Amino acid sequence: MMLSCPSSTMKLIKALEVNQTVTSYAQIRTKQLRLKRNGEPYLRLVLRDRSGQLETKIWNNVEDCDGRINEGDHVKYQGLVQDYKGAKQLVVEKIRKTIPEDRVSGFDENQIIPRTEHDVEKMWTRLQSVVTEHVSRPCIRELLGNILEKNEEKIKSYPAGVEIHHNYWGGFLEHVISVLESVLFFSKNYPDLDKDLLISGAVLHDIGKLEELINPENPAYTTRGRLIGHVVMGAVLVRAEASQITDFPTTLLTQIEHLILSHQGQLEWGSPKKPQTMEALILHYVDDLDAKLNRFHQILRDDPGDSDFTSFDRYLGRMVFKSNHSLCQDSESVTRRSK
Amino acid sequence: MMLSCPSSTMKLIKALEVNQTVTSYAQIRTKQLRLKRNGEPYLRLVLRDRSGQLETKIWNNVEDCDGRINEGDHVKYQGLVQDYKGAKQLVVEKIRKTIPEDRVSGFDENQIIPRTEHDVEKMWTRLQSVVTEHVSRPCIRELLGNILEKNEEKIKSYPAGVEIHHNYWGGFLEHVISVLESVLFFSKNYPDLDKDLLISGAVLHDIGKLEELINPENPAYTTRGRLIGHVVMGAVLVRAEASQITDFPTTLLTQIEHLILSHQGQLEWGSPKKPQTMEALILHYVDDLDAKLNRFHQILRDDPGDSDFTSFDRYLGRMVFKSNHSLCQDSESVTRRSK
Amino acid sequence: MMLSCPSSTMKLIKALEVNQTVTSYAQIRTKQLRLKRNGEPYLRLVLRDRSGQLETKIWNNVEDCDGRINEGDHVKYQGLVQDYKGAKQLVVEKIRKTIPEDRVSGFDENQIIPRTEHDVEKMWTRLQSVVTEHVSRPCIRELLGNILEKNEEKIKSYPAGVEIHHNYWGGFLEHVISVLESVLFFSKNYPDLDKDLLISGAVLHDIGKLEELINPENPAYTTRGRLIGHVVMGAVLVRAEASQITDFPTTLLTQIEHLILSHQGQLEWGSPKKPQTMEALILHYVDDLDAKLNRFHQILRDDPGDSDFTSFDRYLGRMVFKSNHSLCQDSESVTRRSK
Amino acid sequence: MMLSCPSSTMKLIKALEVNQTVTSYAQIRTKQLRLKRNGEPYLRLVLRDRSGQLETKIWNNVEDCDGRINEGDHVKYQGLVQDYKGAKQLVVEKIRKTIPEDRVSGFDENQIIPRTEHDVEKMWTRLQSVVTEHVSRPCIRELLGNILEKNEEKIKSYPAGVEIHHNYWGGFLEHVISVLESVLFFSKNYPDLDKDLLISGAVLHDIGKLEELINPENPAYTTRGRLIGHVVMGAVLVRAEASQITDFPTTLLTQIEHLILSHQGQLEWGSPKKPQTMEALILHYVDDLDAKLNRFHQILRDDPGDSDFTSFDRYLGRMVFKSNHSLCQDSESVTRRSK
Amino acid sequence: MMLSCPSSTMKLIKALEVNQTVTSYAQIRTKQLRLKRNGEPYLRLVLRDRSGQLETKIWNNVEDCDGRINEGDHVKYQGLVQDYKGAKQLVVEKIRKTIPEDRVSGFDENQIIPRTEHDVEKMWTRLQSVVTEHVSRPCIRELLGNILEKNEEKIKSYPAGVEIHHNYWGGFLEHVISVLESVLFFSKNYPDLDKDLLISGAVLHDIGKLEELINPENPAYTTRGRLIGHVVMGAVLVRAEASQITDFPTTLLTQIEHLILSHQGQLEWGSPKKPQTMEALILHYVDDLDAKLNRFHQILRDDPGDSDFTSFDRYLGRMVFKSNHSLCQDSESVTRRSK
Amino acid sequence: MMLSCPSSTMKLIKALEVNQTVTSYAQIRTKQLRLKRNGEPYLRLVLRDRSGQLETKIWNNVEDCDGRINEGDHVKYQGLVQDYKGAKQLVVEKIRKTIPEDRVSGFDENQIIPRTEHDVEKMWTRLQSVVTEHVSRPCIRELLGNILEKNEEKIKSYPAGVEIHHNYWGGFLEHVISVLESVLFFSKNYPDLDKDLLISGAVLHDIGKLEELINPENPAYTTRGRLIGHVVMGAVLVRAEASQITDFPTTLLTQIEHLILSHQGQLEWGSPKKPQTMEALILHYVDDLDAKLNRFHQILRDDPGDSDFTSFDRYLGRMVFKSNHSLCQDSESVTRRSK
Repeated sequence: MMLSCPSSTMKLIKALEVNQTVTSYAQIRTKQLRLKRNGEPYLRLVLRDRSGQLETKIWNNVEDCDGRINEGDHVKYQGLVQDYKGAKQLVVEKIRKTIPEDRVSGFDENQIIPRTEHDVEKMWTRLQSVVTEHVSRPCIRELLGNILEKNEEKIKSYPAGVEIHHNYWGGFLEHVISVLESVLFFSKNYPDLDKDLLISGAVLHDIGKLEELINPENPAYTTRGRLIGHVVMGAVLVRAEASQITDFPTTLLTQIEHLILSHQGQLEWGSPKKPQTMEALILHYVDDLDAKLNRFHQILRDDPGDSDFTSFDRYLGRMVFKSNHSLCQDSESVTRRSK
Repeated sequence: MMLSCPSSTMKLIKALEVNQTVTSYAQIRTKQLRLKRNGEPYLRLVLRDRSGQLETKIWNNVEDCDGRINEGDHVKYQGLVQDYKGAKQLVVEKIRKTIPEDRVSGFDENQIIPRTEHDVEKMWTRLQSVVTEHVSRPCIRELLGNILEKNEEKIKSYPAGVEIHHNYWGGFLEHVISVLESVLFFSKNYPDLDKDLLISGAVLHDIGKLEELINPENPAYTTRGRLIGHVVMGAVLVRAEASQITDFPTTLLTQIEHLILSHQGQLEWGSPKKPQTMEALILHYVDDLDAKLNRFHQILRDDPGDSDFTSFDRYLGRMVFKSNHSLCQDSESVTRRSK
Repeated sequence: MMLSCPSSTMKLIKALEVNQTVTSYAQIRTKQLRLKRNGEPYLRLVLRDRSGQLETKIWNNVEDCDGRINEGDHVKYQGLVQDYKGAKQLVVEKIRKTIPEDRVSGFDENQIIPRTEHDVEKMWTRLQSVVTEHVSRPCIRELLGNILEKNEEKIKSYPAGVEIHHNYWGGFLEHVISVLESVLFFSKNYPDLDKDLLISGAVLHDIGKLEELINPENPAYTTRGRLIGHVVMGAVLVRAEASQITDFPTTLLTQIEHLILSHQGQLEWGSPKKPQTMEALILHYVDDLDAKLNRFHQILRDDPGDSDFTSFDRYLGRMVFKSNHSLCQDSESVTRRSK
Repeated sequence: MMLSCPSSTMKLIKALEVNQTVTSYAQIRTKQLRLKRNGEPYLRLVLRDRSGQLETKIWNNVEDCDGRINEGDHVKYQGLVQDYKGAKQLVVEKIRKTIPEDRVSGFDENQIIPRTEHDVEKMWTRLQSVVTEHVSRPCIRELLGNILEKNEEKIKSYPAGVEIHHNYWGGFLEHVISVLESVLFFSKNYPDLDKDLLISGAVLHDIGKLEELINPENPAYTTRGRLIGHVVMGAVLVRAEASQITDFPTTLLTQIEHLILSHQGQLEWGSPKKPQTMEALILHYVDDLDAKLNRFHQILRDDPGDSDFTSFDRYLGRMVFKSNHSLCQDSESVTRRSK
Repeated sequence: MMLSCPSSTMKLIKALEVNQTVTSYAQIRTKQLRLKRNGEPYLRLVLRDRSGQLETKIWNNVEDCDGRINEGDHVKYQGLVQDYKGAKQLVVEKIRKTIPEDRVSGFDENQIIPRTEHDVEKMWTRLQSVVTEHVSRPCIRELLGNILEKNEEKIKSYPAGVEIHHNYWGGFLEHVISVLESVLFFSKNYPDLDKDLLISGAVLHDIGKLEELINPENPAYTTRGRLIGHVVMGAVLVRAEASQITDFPTTLLTQIEHLILSHQGQLEWGSPKKPQTMEALILHYVDDLDAKLNRFHQILRDDPGDSDFTSFDRYLGRMVFKSNHSLCQDSESVTRRSK
Repeated sequence: MMLSCPSSTMKLIKALEVNQTVTSYAQIRTKQLRLKRNGEPYLRLVLRDRSGQLETKIWNNVEDCDGRINEGDHVKYQGLVQDYKGAKQLVVEKIRKTIPEDRVSGFDENQIIPRTEHDVEKMWTRLQSVVTEHVSRPCIRELLGNILEKNEEKIKSYPAGVEIHHNYWGGFLEHVISVLESVLFFSKNYPDLDKDLLISGAVLHDIGKLEELINPENPAYTTRGRLIGHVVMGAVLVRAEASQITDFPTTLLTQIEHLILSHQGQLEWGSPKKPQTMEALILHYVDDLDAKLNRFHQILRDDPGDSDFTSFDRYLGRMVFKSNHSLCQDSESVTRRSK
């Protein structure tokens, strides 16, 4: 039904160009059967791969297509890319589910889901070694070790959020590692800090997200996630784990729960308590900074325009400057050259 | 007129105990002549040393004392410490300006003014070596070098503020170094950052304070400081210096000015622009975090109570927990030991 | 040392009049030894009974008194009430700890601690009967019954807060009963509400306060109370209890936790989630209204002035009008009588 | 021109299904003549009945249709329901104004306008009997009686708002009755409240809406409504009525005006004064709660999705949980059954 | 009992110097009988004249004095000015009510109450002539004329506020005239404005203050003032007056009421509606600006310090710069003179 | 190719009527080549003249047209105006660049760009004469004169903003003149103001906009404008100019910089300092008022509806009332005529 893919590497949605015919692979995010004005049906799909997503129409063989493909399927498609009101749109001519043989002609499952650019296994190793080597109290080492062990699969796959930041496969772990490196720096550079607490906070502050969300490939909130929230769910999870450890000190556990509960920094941002220790304060700052930097990256990467600034980002409440790092070579300068 | 000081080290205000007679040294911060109900005069002084300050009364030989001591003087005093409405108060029996010989019996000028606990010369050397070794663009190295050279004396002595944080001799430099180490960490740990800009921001973000304030021993705002503010004054100073450098690139200077102008992070905190680059965002976070951590230290150090929490701090909007770092040895624990 | 109390009923602090000598009983809240200007010591006490508290000075026999009475003691005192800067003050002539015989001459321990005006046992019975008779699901009946049983002593004695509202012995129970009656009304008057959830919310919303606070006679925050807060502590307590009940339905427990977590109504008021069910919304409103009404009562009762309005109350952000309920008989009227 | 309606009951818009042909009745809310790209005209109508509204197109006989139907008309229509970008849309084949005979074949005017689900006459009777039986002061009974009498028609038909809550025929009265029952509960359950004032507040707090809005069938703001607002208009109306009553007490009237003026609770919500009496405080809470509960109902009823939560509601600032009230039977539970 | 006043002009409180004996005149604002520690009584008075007020003690002949003078009395006093905790305090030796003959020796009633520095009669004439000459619609001329006529006495004496601005005899009229001149300017300088409305707004915007306050000599809020507020009271008063005028146009009156109701500019500042016309917008700005300028004047006049800035003013939320208007002659300059 | 324009005056976009064929002139703001569903191309243009802008489609001769016209071109067009979803849309039949001869048949370049309704040269003359005649200090006269001279071209053409207010050719000058007249009024009507400072503030407060924006015909932000902002850019520009003047007094310059920096009035509105002088306070108020009045005008002029109110304006946060200034003749009145 479909010719073999002309190129051996998979063409990503972000790279598609208007007025060209393309053959490639994607996942079906949404599928709807609709009627044209003349009463004839057509299919509206949203296709996506790790680079982005694309509105798609199928005008022909509609019933047949409709029966053979479903939401969530990985598909091979062929069609014409058009401009529709300034956005790209695909008119599909052929489409079918992928088959094992497609791997030969370029299909790569790893290109379907957006994912961290870091190596998940290396990050996991780093996480474990920090816990083993930098935590001095055995009780905390045991607590962290147990939680990591029980949640390894989720930690390696979950995003850190549905939309705003680190919203991709492995984003949770990427964010945790980043926060962890930052608190290690601060524990070295500032006096009087409790490194065990800082590490506990870095590792555990978002642990509730593993229960707040489901399905790392297409993350969504659980009912319990919406009604309780990851801040409290994380504290509850950690308290339950600590109660399995013999003689876990009461006030130490309270401090770890406080780190988790206060990491949003302010009541109006969802923390029922403000940070009341230096460790909690640092955790809030490096967590918030890492989230915002990830958002900056995302905006700078995705902004399609060629102006010096991105469009206004509602989450950050500002436009972002696309700075050019070889500025010292600019032809224009503040001062005239002395001659 | 006064016996030699019995101990060879100077007794600090914070260490004074109620109902004891003390002989020591301090500076006169405030001096007022007042009348008792019976019409007789008395002197009210505020004495201070690096550990704190003390309300003081002189009931006898008032006119004589009044003529011989002035605000700002370093003095030797002898008197009785009393409790007055819960605060310590000193009734002075003898007081005179210090004389060179006092050094023999314990007077130490370094104990008068509160100052950084770090070594100023070492910090200064670190600051210069970072500029020399970590900045890649010659134009920025020149800019930073010139500004440091012209302001060396102020940089080594100024506080970073009058009240809230790093409000002591050398506090400016301590704060700059701390912010600098943080941005060096982030430039190493995060991709795509312009290290030159981060260093410029760390070194220059508060440079306007050298003109906003006067008198590092007893800092106060200048008129220009109150009407313009260190945020804009810093940007103006840096622009003036850059205009002395041949061919300083226009957009590069704009970015440095932006770092300074946006470092308060939000409009309502005094920045006329929000951070619009990743470097400006990082600068804001590490600057703000360092200021708040310094405040935490200060509160924890000065809080006189023996409760688990400090009293409510208006600047931080919270009480701070006095955590005990050997918690793992606590007798109380969450779980019962399995036997 | 002291004559028998002339009257058989105990005179309360609120009823003391300036320039009169009084003999009565109270508790010592604070005791401080201070020095007069001439170096002689005096004692400053704060006395209190259920009607209020009183600044007190002892000028004579100071050392002797100081050794025989302590903070927390119940005492018999005799002294002169004076006006000091517009507030009443007591100069004590005689003071000693109470003895059993004082009961004969009027001492009544129940007059010492401020307490609810309602009958604690009756409220307790009402609470239990509502749970037994109005809750339809056995699992919730079991949950509420268990929690009440384990906490009976605290529920019967705790205040609902340290300062703002229901801040007296039995205030917790009084507040719970009031919220409970309100939700029963709403469950009857509005359609489609889950009465079990409403009752659970009313009974449990502040249950975390039993661990957030200690010592109902002189309530204070625990360390865990300050770092975690009663909102989360309550949810954790309830989750722990539910896990002891066989087959407690998951989503039902989540809803009860949501009721507790969201009862402050807004994130900035300390709830990590806003009410997302009608039951949670109602709970927030009737809880908040009951607290504010209690505050109105307290202000109206304690305001000493004779103006039409109380002084400005910082918690309520307003003055309160002292309305006169027989207004229809007022001589002044909007309209002239037609004759 | 049109066949008789096949079913004897009127089919409501909410119940229409895509890809079916329907014959039913509705009101024309909006009518616009437009041009297709080829220059030919078509009609765009918005039809509505009490269950919702529907975008509608007429492609044929356009001029003829346009001349025979107008905005506001009740019409009989026949057409095909289609899906257009995820929303239902109707392509009309036949349409004409209703005629008396349509009642026989199913047309019911009561199905056109959305209206309260309560019996208006019963609510009116309840309102009058509360005034007669629960108000103790004759002057207030007279005031309320007069206002009700003069505004009977409006009170029985007006909505309580244009959009947010109780926005349907009879919504005003439904809201007043609900607030009234609540204040009656509080007057019984809380001590020291003036029941006459509470009843006056419940009955009169929104009375200004009868002048702020016009046309209960299709409510809109009057010019005076927009420039003055129902809060002040209500107070003015009540003052005018009270001035017709002989010897209405001045301060009593002031209190009633205060109830009306302060019922929004906060200055930023449109009340020029905060509640300064307990009665005004209660009125604000039960009014606000009733409005929000009505909004919850509306959202839960109208949300089309099948997820556990409604979509985000801008007015409430949250999603609402669609709880299932037979939760105790859930198969999933927190704890494993002990066996 | 008292010698004649040595100087023929009355010495004002602001001009008193510490450690001097003074004989002058003032009003008694507050009088309290208190007890010294030894049980002997003394009198505490607050004296005031138009320049300020003064804490005062009478140690001798206390009962006698107490019986002969009362709050509100104008008195002649003699005493010694002392410094008490940095503020001036008076120890009175002689005091008695003023007698007619005191006028000969310097007593001037006009010096007792703080009052506008403008000529009240001239302002009144200006107000009337603007109404007569600048208002074009007869109905508005009649409305303004009637209101001015009925309230002439109050308009000529009331302050515009109790504390914040124009808080002195005649302040109301001074403020109205100032706002009036501003709106006349704007009506001339901006096109399309309705001058009649602007004048109405200027004259009437604060008219409710004549009922919100009582007693211009020592202004206080009325009960109705606190519960309703001058914003609504003014609109009600104007509506009542307009209803006395034959055929006053409905929408015109609504616009005037809107001007009054919206003149605070924002809901959170107490206006139930924001300005929705250009006239209402202008009125808000010039009213607010005039109030703030009056506050600046007051602060600059009263600030006792010799620094370049006043102390922090809570109402304005800032310090105010004491600028020197002959700055062009300053010795210091930005640039060096080229020579 | 195109017939001569039938009327001798140019038809403006705002005056176009649906379903009519029009021939007129405009500028091309945007040009995009797009594909129809059948794959054929069409052109989408946005045309604009001083009265507004218009969405435009070209269905025929697309490639040919595309090659001959460009963004920014002035063109002659002929086409049919249609209604598309409630907005006007033009289907172009003929289009070409304007040629000199078009002036004969009605083309007027002045009708293309929206511009101030005031005479630019008269405003410029007024501006210069105020500086010459009203400024008393020579140094300020020199400063203002120099800045005006250097920026004459920009001052005569720039808008005062891109979107919100005075967003048209000459808007900057119109706004400056308006603020200038206002401060002249206040300097005359209020005592103790420094007129030189007021004039400096009026002339210079927005001077940074001449560098913040580029291209007055189609204004946009510069990179430096976005990163620094006109508030600081203006202060920097003025400081640079003052440094060219011999002996410009230091504190005087600081005050002028303060006027510029604080003219937004509040930190959250982008001023790094609040106004701390009366002159700065006045400048902020008259600047803000003039901007808002211009917005009112704009909204009232452009609102297409026939209701009494404009639609909601997000910038002003309200609807605006379209008042009718001959209200006194209204048939409806508050009171019945007495007969």
